[in-house]
Amino acid sequence: MDVAGRLARLRSRLDGAGCEVLLVTHPTNVRYLSGFTGSAASLVVSSERAALITDGRYEEQAAEELAAAGVGAEVVIGRTQAAQADELRDRLAAAATVGLEAHHVTWAEQRRLADLVDGELVPTEGLVEDLRQVKDDGEVARIEAAARIADAALEAVLPQLDTGPTEAAFAAALDGEMRARGADDVSFETIVASGPNGSRPHHRPGPRRIERGDLVVIDFGALVDGYHSDMTRTIPVGGRAALDATQRRMMDVVTEAQAAGVAAVAAGAPLAGVDAACRTVIEAAGWGDAFVHGTGHGVGLDIHEAPGVNATAAANLVAGQVVTVEPGVYLPGTGGVRVEDTVVVTEGGARPLTCAPKP
Amino acid sequence: MDVAGRLARLRSRLDGAGCEVLLVTHPTNVRYLSGFTGSAASLVVSSERAALITDGRYEEQAAEELAAAGVGAEVVIGRTQAAQADELRDRLAAAATVGLEAHHVTWAEQRRLADLVDGELVPTEGLVEDLRQVKDDGEVARIEAAARIADAALEAVLPQLDTGPTEAAFAAALDGEMRARGADDVSFETIVASGPNGSRPHHRPGPRRIERGDLVVIDFGALVDGYHSDMTRTIPVGGRAALDATQRRMMDVVTEAQAAGVAAVAAGAPLAGVDAACRTVIEAAGWGDAFVHGTGHGVGLDIHEAPGVNATAAANLVAGQVVTVEPGVYLPGTGGVRVEDTVVVTEGGARPLTCAPKP
Repeated sequence: MDVAGRLARLRSRLDGAGCEVLLVTHPTNVRYLSGFTGSAASLVVSSERAALITDGRYEEQAAEELAAAGVGAEVVIGRTQAAQADELRDRLAAAATVGLEAHHVTWAEQRRLADLVDGELVPTEGLVEDLRQVKDDGEVARIEAAARIADAALEAVLPQLDTGPTEAAFAAALDGEMRARGADDVSFETIVASGPNGSRPHHRPGPRRIERGDLVVIDFGALVDGYHSDMTRTIPVGGRAALDATQRRMMDVVTEAQAAGVAAVAAGAPLAGVDAACRTVIEAAGWGDAFVHGTGHGVGLDIHEAPGVNATAAANLVAGQVVTVEPGVYLPGTGGVRVEDTVVVTEGGARPLTCAPKP
Repeated sequence: MDVAGRLARLRSRLDGAGCEVLLVTHPTNVRYLSGFTGSAASLVVSSERAALITDGRYEEQAAEELAAAGVGAEVVIGRTQAAQADELRDRLAAAATVGLEAHHVTWAEQRRLADLVDGELVPTEGLVEDLRQVKDDGEVARIEAAARIADAALEAVLPQLDTGPTEAAFAAALDGEMRARGADDVSFETIVASGPNGSRPHHRPGPRRIERGDLVVIDFGALVDGYHSDMTRTIPVGGRAALDATQRRMMDVVTEAQAAGVAAVAAGAPLAGVDAACRTVIEAAGWGDAFVHGTGHGVGLDIHEAPGVNATAAANLVAGQVVTVEPGVYLPGTGGVRVEDTVVVTEGGARPLTCAPKP
């Protein structure tokens, strides 16, 4: 993973963003640029220098992590908030324009900084997030390692679905299996939505017992070295034979839509085209209104990151982006089906990182 | 839990905050006021009305959760971001002053809203957070239930420390035990910091094998119905007999400091006095510089919430607040000790909610 080269790529974008100095405060962006994994730090980046300002809790860790990543930024410890503010003021004093990450800095923080610095505050959007969209080989390898763990964990616990577990118990088993297989953590709170609960795309696993004839939406992932995987499978408990005609049709339509979406992925292809490919199949089945969310999102250090894969996305896909394709159909009172893979965009198409079988 | 009465208490504070209408966007605050547990919604609160604006994913869930909590707010579904913006504009149009949660709204969002509404945007701080500080009996019961699970889970897995597990494996066992005992989730990423790693207050569990003679800092909690518990124990592997003189003294000093801090808790007592009580003991031992963080924080729907328990806190404790008391000593190269309980503030003192034995 080439962490050390990222500051230079960011610096080349400062002029275009209208700022001499960028104050990076979003923890994920700080991590991406510096290798620092703590929860609170400010990274001041100018064309020539960089300084990571953090608190006493992180004195050792910050120095070690920046050195390990080969990142040439000064580590500055402020033992109090006032001391951190002083350090920040010193490093921003010479700048006529100071960029803030407008989507991450709170209004209160912007007001505090306006009092603290003499230069003009400039709202910036997506400067670091845009860099993060295209993954290097080390990043893809981490997402793929997370996806391998998730694939294997699902395979290991899937037989338990036939034993009548609660949603919560099945989710706990899946999460435990991912940890046992080396995940640092789960990627996000696992969704297990069975029977009628499946009509809620973000259902939290609860006390409902899973039974034969249920469709069970399982949306989950593993975390490896900061990188997330994301996959959804919808499992017919008891097999297709246990489903009714509507359930079978939901499975078929969503599976076909998802395959059409993945087939629309390639470097240079429009993001909106991936959404359209999924939506066309679902609309043709008469369920357009039941596909209530966008088709996908980027995955990396955040579980949801740029680019968004939806009808209003204006850009084209780029090789090295890692995105999800996850159409769904949700019928209140009946249930839901969602099928999702995380894929890496290649010149000719897409390489799936999540590979569990689709029933 | 009296969710339905909270909107009225908030309304009584709008005038003092200088706003006719408050736009609540922080998910935890939305949940507190409405019972809605989804990840994205805006709650518009005026003196007479309230409306929860969310997206299509949450149509069923929002209606059900508000009804279950007995909260009289209109549920408004905007299927696109543009539709949600339209709904928001309609509901804010008549207000001359619109309060925003300045510590939660991003600068970008504030700029978007400034374009969207005619009224003046007013920064507010802690309006809902202040209400959240004092817990009702239902809230304390949930935190206590989470603490019971954490206590029991630690007791169950503690013998594994003697078998030479890695930090990561021990953390996974503890997390799994909490889930198995009914936790909805862990309260935050469990910290297991052994031997020299203990000098990092926020160390992430890693591949280091835990061995006899280690001090192991274990900082963890359970989540029950949205409410968190928080406890730290530092365990001497092999018992006190396996420790050297410095390690034993660290244990004794921090344990004494923590008890002094808890003894300083009572309704009406100064928050800063709790910090001072801990710090005095540690300073007397010559380790003042090695206690590198504040003494504690409120706990509830967030793992860290108001009030902060530190040297600069100006307020006094109030009965019904739930706070942590968690002094520590961190010696780079050697290791660390932290001892933490979550307590509920009573008229006469403090009632500990976390009760695992302190070695």
